[in-house]
Amino acid sequence: MSISADVAGVIRSVEGFPKPGISFKDIVPLLADPVLCDRLADALVEPFRSEGVDMIAAIESRGFILGSLMAQKLGCGLTLVRKKGKLPHVTVAEEYDLEYGSAIIEMHEDSFEKGSKVLIHDDLLATGGTAEAAAKLCKRLDAQLVGFSFIIELIGLKGKELIQPYSENIVSIVNY
Amino acid sequence: MSISADVAGVIRSVEGFPKPGISFKDIVPLLADPVLCDRLADALVEPFRSEGVDMIAAIESRGFILGSLMAQKLGCGLTLVRKKGKLPHVTVAEEYDLEYGSAIIEMHEDSFEKGSKVLIHDDLLATGGTAEAAAKLCKRLDAQLVGFSFIIELIGLKGKELIQPYSENIVSIVNY
Repeated sequence: MSISADVAGVIRSVEGFPKPGISFKDIVPLLADPVLCDRLADALVEPFRSEGVDMIAAIESRGFILGSLMAQKLGCGLTLVRKKGKLPHVTVAEEYDLEYGSAIIEMHEDSFEKGSKVLIHDDLLATGGTAEAAAKLCKRLDAQLVGFSFIIELIGLKGKELIQPYSENIVSIVNY
Repeated sequence: MSISADVAGVIRSVEGFPKPGISFKDIVPLLADPVLCDRLADALVEPFRSEGVDMIAAIESRGFILGSLMAQKLGCGLTLVRKKGKLPHVTVAEEYDLEYGSAIIEMHEDSFEKGSKVLIHDDLLATGGTAEAAAKLCKRLDAQLVGFSFIIELIGLKGKELIQPYSENIVSIVNY
């Protein structure tokens, strides 16, 4: 079976979480299978193997899980994109819109050398607000943005349109 | 050099974070080195290789990073211990004391089969409150608790004393 079908087969939809009308995609059952996680990490980095990626920028907090495996696959570093106030060193910050209100994410200013080739990873691409904010942070730190890699994409929310201006190389394994 | 010395060499102490008087141990620089992360994951699971671990229970959110690599090393599953309200499926919850006030962590009730051999991982053992709460959750889910594995232990805070009743097998790589 394809990696997409195998991963889709273990993602659990939880209806009404975190609020009525939302069908939450739960990756926890996927994590119980180490062989499938290994194959998924391969699939997430495969299109970027020839790009010479220096750093995976993984978005808090589910992005840390496969992001860590992806960095091992590519033999590159991992850096963290976190919610405001979590990173202890000097940071750069970016605010972005949520459905109601806004949020702020941060990266350490010394996350990578200027000119580094950076691949952004999160478990889920929804509206794209968080991924776009991460891309802006990477650009402010003078990254060459190699692309984006997600486990899941919620097609109807058109997040891809929002982040395409930062890189055309956008991978997602399972689409809803 | 030993893994302890190599890891200690790249952990950054940030004074006064998150508040005056605290010397925060920042593992982000460690994550930039994939070879060192691989060696660290080996060291974190080495004492448990013969235990037949079924599941790593990784504590939010820095615990997810090495926890994911540890599960690959052991060929076992990974499950998540998260702050209240983050896990979408039916959960069990445990409250524990903080310096001021309290916090609640949760696990999915179907995190693993009853009787599973579970290894708890977090990046840091401080007072032990979070690790103890995780141990209580694992016990309530009828785990056989195999032990605890931490990157860093703050010896002076005596967290080891708090969690020893749950398992004597407590590993930490770097001690302060």
